[in-house]
Order: sequence, then C-alpha cells, then structure tokens
Amino acid sequence: MNNYCGTSRISGCQFTLYPMSDKFVDIILSALNEVDTSKVWKQTDDVSTCIRGKMVHIFDVTKAIFLHAAKTGEHIAMSGTFSIGCPGDSDADVYMDKTDTPINESNVKEINQEAGCKFSLYPLGREDYMNAIYEQIDLSKHRNVQVSSTHYATRLDGDVHDIFQALYQSFDSVQEQVSHVTMTFSISANSPSNR
Amino acid sequence: MNNYCGTSRISGCQFTLYPMSDKFVDIILSALNEVDTSKVWKQTDDVSTCIRGKMVHIFDVTKAIFLHAAKTGEHIAMSGTFSIGCPGDSDADVYMDKTDTPINESNVKEINQEAGCKFSLYPLGREDYMNAIYEQIDLSKHRNVQVSSTHYATRLDGDVHDIFQALYQSFDSVQEQVSHVTMTFSISANSPSNR
Repeated sequence: MNNYCGTSRISGCQFTLYPMSDKFVDIILSALNEVDTSKVWKQTDDVSTCIRGKMVHIFDVTKAIFLHAAKTGEHIAMSGTFSIGCPGDSDADVYMDKTDTPINESNVKEINQEAGCKFSLYPLGREDYMNAIYEQIDLSKHRNVQVSSTHYATRLDGDVHDIFQALYQSFDSVQEQVSHVTMTFSISANSPSNR
Repeated sequence: MNNYCGTSRISGCQFTLYPMSDKFVDIILSALNEVDTSKVWKQTDDVSTCIRGKMVHIFDVTKAIFLHAAKTGEHIAMSGTFSIGCPGDSDADVYMDKTDTPINESNVKEINQEAGCKFSLYPLGREDYMNAIYEQIDLSKHRNVQVSSTHYATRLDGDVHDIFQALYQSFDSVQEQVSHVTMTFSISANSPSNR
C-alpha cells in the first residue's frame, strides 16, 4: 500500500456542522447540496462526517460547507479534527488522483463571514512535539487573522477565508516535519454573544 | 510550580455544547445553571468553555451539562478535547484541593439518555503512541457500551452514563502511562437520523 501520490499524502477530516436553529436539517442538507464533494471520499452518520483525500480538497470542502451554512445568518458552528499520516489510512487512494484546484472556491469566494476559531496541533510520535507546536503558534502571528492564546488552543479571529488559510498553513507546515499530525478546530459564526 | 496534588494531576476540557434549536441560548444557560461547577476552574467565550481541575470533576461537569441539555428532548451535541499533563498547565492548582466526589452525580443519575459518541486518544511525546491507542481501543470492548471503529476515531453507543464512564476509563488508563494525553470527543443525542 502506498499513501503517497506524487508529493501528496492522504489526509482527512472528521467534522460536524452545528446549526443552532430549528431548521438545522434543512441548513445541513442545503450546505451539503451546494458543495461539490466529488474530489473527496465521504461518509456521514448521525455523529459526524468524514472526508478523505488531498489536503487541498479537504480544506476546500470543510470551508465551503461552513460558509454555505453561515450565510443563512443563523448561529453556525463546526468542529472536527484534521488528520494526516495516520498509519493504515490508505484505502481511499483513488481520491488522490485528482487535480490541485479547490473546486468550491469560485462558489464561496464572495461570501464574507466573520468567525472565531480555536485550534490545536498534535504532532504525534515525536518527543520534541512541543517545539513544533510553539513554532507554529508563533508563525500564525504573521497571517491575516487576529491570533491569541488560550488554554489548550490557539484562537483565530477574522474572515472565514483567512481563518481556513491559517489553519491550512499551520497544518501543512507541521506535516512537512512530522509524519502523523492531527489538528482539532472549533469555529463559530453569528453567535449572539458577539452582537 | 507543582502540577500534582497527591496522586492527581491537573486536567482540563475545552468543549462546546450545541443545541440544534432556536432555543439554544435558553438550553445552554439552563444546563449551565443546573450544573454545579464550583469544583472546577471555568472560562467561557463565544467559541467554547474551558474547565480545569481534577479529572473526576472535569468528567462530572461535562457529563452533567450534556445530560441536562439532552433531557429537553432537542437534538443536542457536544464536542471537545480533554487534556492532561500539558506542559505549563499549572495556574489553577487551587482547584486541585477538592474532594473526589462527583458533585453533580446525584442530580443526573436518573436521567437516561441514549447517545452516539466518537472519540480519539492522542498520547503525545511518545514514539510508541500507536500501541497505547490500539491497547485502549481493545480495552473499550469490555465495557457496557457498543464499540465500533471508524476512520480516525472509536465509536461508542449506549447510555450517556456508560459512554462517559468508558471515556473516563480510556483517558485514565492512557494518562497513567503517558504524561501528556489529549482525547477528542463528539457526542450526539436525539438526532432525527435515529428516529
């Protein structure tokens, strides 16, 4: 089994979309309907959705689902875990033979949405893992989002596009150094606490 | 600084409660109001709540908040990350001087609630981390819940009390062997997918 396709490795995300609304079923189904998931392997049950494939498509799909749900104006949250290099994660290799163009970008680039997000990086199998985390937290400060530290996580505030770009860059730079990396995230938009 | 109090270490959980309902503010506030959080350090913002203290109280409080919200009958989810042994996590030591009695248990023990939960264990700083994970997944099979494997996570189905007991035991047995451990979880009750 070969987890590599060119220079890419198979990655994935286990996530859940949470619309805080009586219309949660419609919002979830509409968001899923508006997002092109043809470039990722996908499985959904009552607890979460798992997608797997190239990193660029994993981030493209999660961002697009969140944005299509958030544009309803309802209080929307999403949480999940990105993963790359998990030993044994290889049976969706067919989804690695795809291009590098984020297929949903053209449909979501006009959606402007502020959000708050907390994320944590977990480089696994390395005794010097804290250095990788600290370096990364420092790197985040150079991006187009407001960065603050909190217990067990780093907080990002700004536009959803910039937040996902920072998440992608953080994850990408750590996975270049560490084989198996997971990254948890929890993002929230239209919270009444901010009105 | 001393992270130890007797044999206990400070632990914590960063979590969010998600009521899929127009009444989400009331449900969150009511649940928080019904739960005694006096034995933990607590901080809430628009993205998540962080609690820290003895492991027994961290699990007691998260379970109680979930149960009080779920008993409304609405579709309720909670996700978060338990953490123990994070280097530098020490400034809530005052919350370690408490008893070991789970203070909310008497108020929630009569609440029977089925749920589905996915969790993942991340033992950090160890090259043999996958062994700790595999051993743990195997241990789970002996508990009073239905255990199944899924991508990046282990799924537990059953009563919420049994699910949290399995989460606690999994987390506890790994943290006895590994200094810094995190455990992500995502739990869902009253999902219309199950009706």
